[in-house]
Amino acid sequence: MLSLGRCVAIQTATVKRAARILTVACTSSMATDPAKKRVLIVGGVAGGASCAARLRRLDEQAEITIFERGPYVSFANCGLPYFVGDVIKEQSSLLVANAAKFNKWFDVAVKESTEVVSVDRLAKTMKARNLNSGEEVVYSYDYLVLSPGGNAIRPPIPGAELPGIFTMKTIPDANAIKSWINEKDAKTAVVVGGGFIGLEMVENLVHRGLKCSLVEMLPQVMPPYDPEVVEPVHERLRSVGVDLHLGDGVAGFEATPGGGLLVKTQSGKAHGADLIVLAIGVRPETILARQSGLELGSRGGIRVDEHMRTSDPAIFAVGDAVEVKDFVTGEHTLIPLAGPANRQGRIVADVITGNEPSRFRGSQGTSVVGLFGLTLAATGASEKTLKRLGRDFRKVYLHINNHAGYYPGAKQIDIKLLFDPQDGRVLGMQAVGEEGVEKRVDVVAMAIQKGGTVFDLEEAELCYAPQYGSAKDPVNMVGMVAANVMRGQHPLTSWDELNLQELVSDPGTVLVDVREPSELEKVGKVEGAINMPLSTLRSQLAKLQDKDKKYYVYCQVGLRGYVATRQFLQRGFDAVNVSGGFKSFLQQMPERPAKL
Amino acid sequence: MLSLGRCVAIQTATVKRAARILTVACTSSMATDPAKKRVLIVGGVAGGASCAARLRRLDEQAEITIFERGPYVSFANCGLPYFVGDVIKEQSSLLVANAAKFNKWFDVAVKESTEVVSVDRLAKTMKARNLNSGEEVVYSYDYLVLSPGGNAIRPPIPGAELPGIFTMKTIPDANAIKSWINEKDAKTAVVVGGGFIGLEMVENLVHRGLKCSLVEMLPQVMPPYDPEVVEPVHERLRSVGVDLHLGDGVAGFEATPGGGLLVKTQSGKAHGADLIVLAIGVRPETILARQSGLELGSRGGIRVDEHMRTSDPAIFAVGDAVEVKDFVTGEHTLIPLAGPANRQGRIVADVITGNEPSRFRGSQGTSVVGLFGLTLAATGASEKTLKRLGRDFRKVYLHINNHAGYYPGAKQIDIKLLFDPQDGRVLGMQAVGEEGVEKRVDVVAMAIQKGGTVFDLEEAELCYAPQYGSAKDPVNMVGMVAANVMRGQHPLTSWDELNLQELVSDPGTVLVDVREPSELEKVGKVEGAINMPLSTLRSQLAKLQDKDKKYYVYCQVGLRGYVATRQFLQRGFDAVNVSGGFKSFLQQMPERPAKL
Repeated sequence: MLSLGRCVAIQTATVKRAARILTVACTSSMATDPAKKRVLIVGGVAGGASCAARLRRLDEQAEITIFERGPYVSFANCGLPYFVGDVIKEQSSLLVANAAKFNKWFDVAVKESTEVVSVDRLAKTMKARNLNSGEEVVYSYDYLVLSPGGNAIRPPIPGAELPGIFTMKTIPDANAIKSWINEKDAKTAVVVGGGFIGLEMVENLVHRGLKCSLVEMLPQVMPPYDPEVVEPVHERLRSVGVDLHLGDGVAGFEATPGGGLLVKTQSGKAHGADLIVLAIGVRPETILARQSGLELGSRGGIRVDEHMRTSDPAIFAVGDAVEVKDFVTGEHTLIPLAGPANRQGRIVADVITGNEPSRFRGSQGTSVVGLFGLTLAATGASEKTLKRLGRDFRKVYLHINNHAGYYPGAKQIDIKLLFDPQDGRVLGMQAVGEEGVEKRVDVVAMAIQKGGTVFDLEEAELCYAPQYGSAKDPVNMVGMVAANVMRGQHPLTSWDELNLQELVSDPGTVLVDVREPSELEKVGKVEGAINMPLSTLRSQLAKLQDKDKKYYVYCQVGLRGYVATRQFLQRGFDAVNVSGGFKSFLQQMPERPAKL
Repeated sequence: MLSLGRCVAIQTATVKRAARILTVACTSSMATDPAKKRVLIVGGVAGGASCAARLRRLDEQAEITIFERGPYVSFANCGLPYFVGDVIKEQSSLLVANAAKFNKWFDVAVKESTEVVSVDRLAKTMKARNLNSGEEVVYSYDYLVLSPGGNAIRPPIPGAELPGIFTMKTIPDANAIKSWINEKDAKTAVVVGGGFIGLEMVENLVHRGLKCSLVEMLPQVMPPYDPEVVEPVHERLRSVGVDLHLGDGVAGFEATPGGGLLVKTQSGKAHGADLIVLAIGVRPETILARQSGLELGSRGGIRVDEHMRTSDPAIFAVGDAVEVKDFVTGEHTLIPLAGPANRQGRIVADVITGNEPSRFRGSQGTSVVGLFGLTLAATGASEKTLKRLGRDFRKVYLHINNHAGYYPGAKQIDIKLLFDPQDGRVLGMQAVGEEGVEKRVDVVAMAIQKGGTVFDLEEAELCYAPQYGSAKDPVNMVGMVAANVMRGQHPLTSWDELNLQELVSDPGTVLVDVREPSELEKVGKVEGAINMPLSTLRSQLAKLQDKDKKYYVYCQVGLRGYVATRQFLQRGFDAVNVSGGFKSFLQQMPERPAKL
């Protein structure tokens, strides 16, 4: 029943035909070829596996073979940290499908532990080496699909190859870490790198009972996110006892005489550990693409068109190894996430079978990470990306309950929304909190996909019962704030745009705190600000004379600041509300003391 | 500081001016009036309260007065069942804002326990009666906003006024029920009506320890939903011990000699109870509108335009009392939900202040109810609505895990998606399950709002980490199934379209079960179906001859049925997959035995 890609013996006879097909493919007609399509897929996880399955559903005749360098196809790499943490108990749970299922369900041949070592584009053949036997076989193809993924980066730093220092990308990686922990009875770990994998590893190592340190070169974890948005993540890490070292790169690793390891940082610190996990990112696996002379992009990934076709029309590429268009900014980028990889794999199957003009619309970088009860999620562009591109934008902050406050257990979500000041189009949203975070990001992801504006968020009609949301859902609320800005009803600034020292010393500006005096005592305050509580603001405003000054108004989270700002404005004062209020102040300037 | 609507003494002098303003208003210019706008709002919950607050933010000069018939403004009526169930402990939690806050924050006068008894549209005055003192005062207005809400229906059935029989709409209603339970030490309850309030009351009464019966006239709970979608709700109610009586109306109520109550049904049954809650719906409160000669709609609500203006340009109406346009079907409908009411209130404030061409885009009926760990949610049109309107549609069923199956604790969501067969536009989605249900409905709500298609759902980019979702999220999956139908790749039918008796006896049709034999033993099977397991289907198909027959293929939830159908089709057989598989079969025909 197996129909393998053909081996070298058969190949000799078909070179001529293969060359002929290349010409045909270049002139773009494929569906008319009556012969069985021979499709070879390099890499059997996410994109490659999705491609194979859909290809078979669309074409019962095709000869499909998957080559996987590792010992498993279609494994759940996003589950690996949780497998290390024993949240996922069985390795078998991670195997979404195995070679036998591909064979039975899809009549797809799977060659595991087999590395593709070279491609002959002219002959349309490729050579694969069985990593166990060393045997090399040449296969011919009509279509080649590259889904090689990325490689965990192991930096060229002294000691990086020492035993006990692991990367985290494959099932063998995870098993090696688990074995090391068990065999060495590891009690302490240093994780290097605070991205998705790094944070998930920290959570799972802590979950296993290890004392954990996290070393991150940047001054924040989760580099794709804006720094103030991840501040609650820093707080949470510290609160659960993680030793957090931000803004400090690794200089080297050493083994200690006692059998332990030492991470030495650029600032001169040394952190001891029984185990070190390197989670500083993945690099697109492009060796095969480069050797084959396929075009690469400026970010180091394989360059493809919207049909996932490389510079060779018979070769497609998908997943972590390719550069995709950012759906919001239009620039080429690397998005090493499973969702886009799966979509891309399906698109290749569509294009190969000629069934429709399937295209990849680009990626908007929707992502989520959970740790220690906190969820951090985002979709679309960040402020740092928009600034880097010189793109015009506005932003609002919102701190709001995930569901009706009158129902027990409401948790605060911190939201940052970025939008186009010309037309109100939503450019991106980031959010962090304990409950309901990813729901709001998903709704906004769909809004961005459909070109939605802040006015669309304002009038979204979402599920409301008190345990699920609010009559004005957080999505509505952040839309309302932004829409009021768009309508010119809500002059807004944010803490990071203010120089507080200048502001309180400048006789032309007044910082107005509209919270109640009891809150200032309890939560903290900004020295130099005048307290004019909202509850008595009208009577105070009636006496206020100085209309030449500029009033910067803030409350705790921004709502009362808005209500107060409207009063100032309508009485002829020049006023602006500080987005997100004092709560955003604390997040945006965490190292600055609350009292100036 | 209070600026009340004006009383009758002042009124006399301003009648002439009011009449003049009416003329001006009729010729549509309002923003040019330099005088302070006098806005009277009838009803201080949801729509009315939102209107007052936004009106003040936009217009510091307006004279705003809220008249509330009940003792509280701006209370959280959606929380009342949970207050009865002691989930919400304090009555004060239900008071989102009180008269004092409206006064302090918004300079809005609030007249509680005050009923508006008549409107003189020509004079632009209205008369209000204080329900405590009986005093009546006439107020003049420039704009009148009607937000009277709806009234809980108490049917004209014998005994409906007996002590111990309650409706559930206000804080006094909830307190009366709580007192009755405590004072009578009530142990049993009958809830009449299986809509939102009825189900939430059942949950909360059970939560308080009462043995509960639910009597519903229709053969299903949650009438806006399609019957097969709510089948898991029926199961859940029964599984927690609720005595569920569907398809049986109430004939009358009786008091028993022992001090209890009896619900007698049309089928002749009698259910005893210490407490009866009537939850058979709300009727738009339109007395004032009718007395004033305002136009009403065919559904019995106040007719308004997209600016929420009634047939009198100086009078607006919002909330449960108005008819709105259904965003999907375009027909007029009643949507007694808090979210739309709040939006409408804001729009009226916008229109009154002339700040923008604010309009209500219509309602798509997004709703959610939670009970006994289950969440049922929907957005857009149901199948029954589309059928009633004779609207062309297609549907797919999907039974899918809320998050990656390899991560512990995944729960199944049952999804029904309705879409336009011409262009794939999403018309509605209903879903039920334990986790992640309302999230998917919210995403699809945004898709519907933006005119999204099943292709948009297919390529949505949503949050994925294994504890939150899947690389192919349920939204993607249901979109993929529907998109494959749209592309002609996936011929699909559903159990309710099949006559199983005919199908298995017709020599021209074959019912093919592609599950593994062990599943049939465990889960049940359809007698007369041929078992051709997917794992060995290819070899069986190679031997299958009969290409003149039609093959109806199904598996457990629909996925393998699709894979199998593709094999049948590509080998030249006429085949169709049964959407949602055997699982949908059980839901769609719950009373039919699994074995024919």
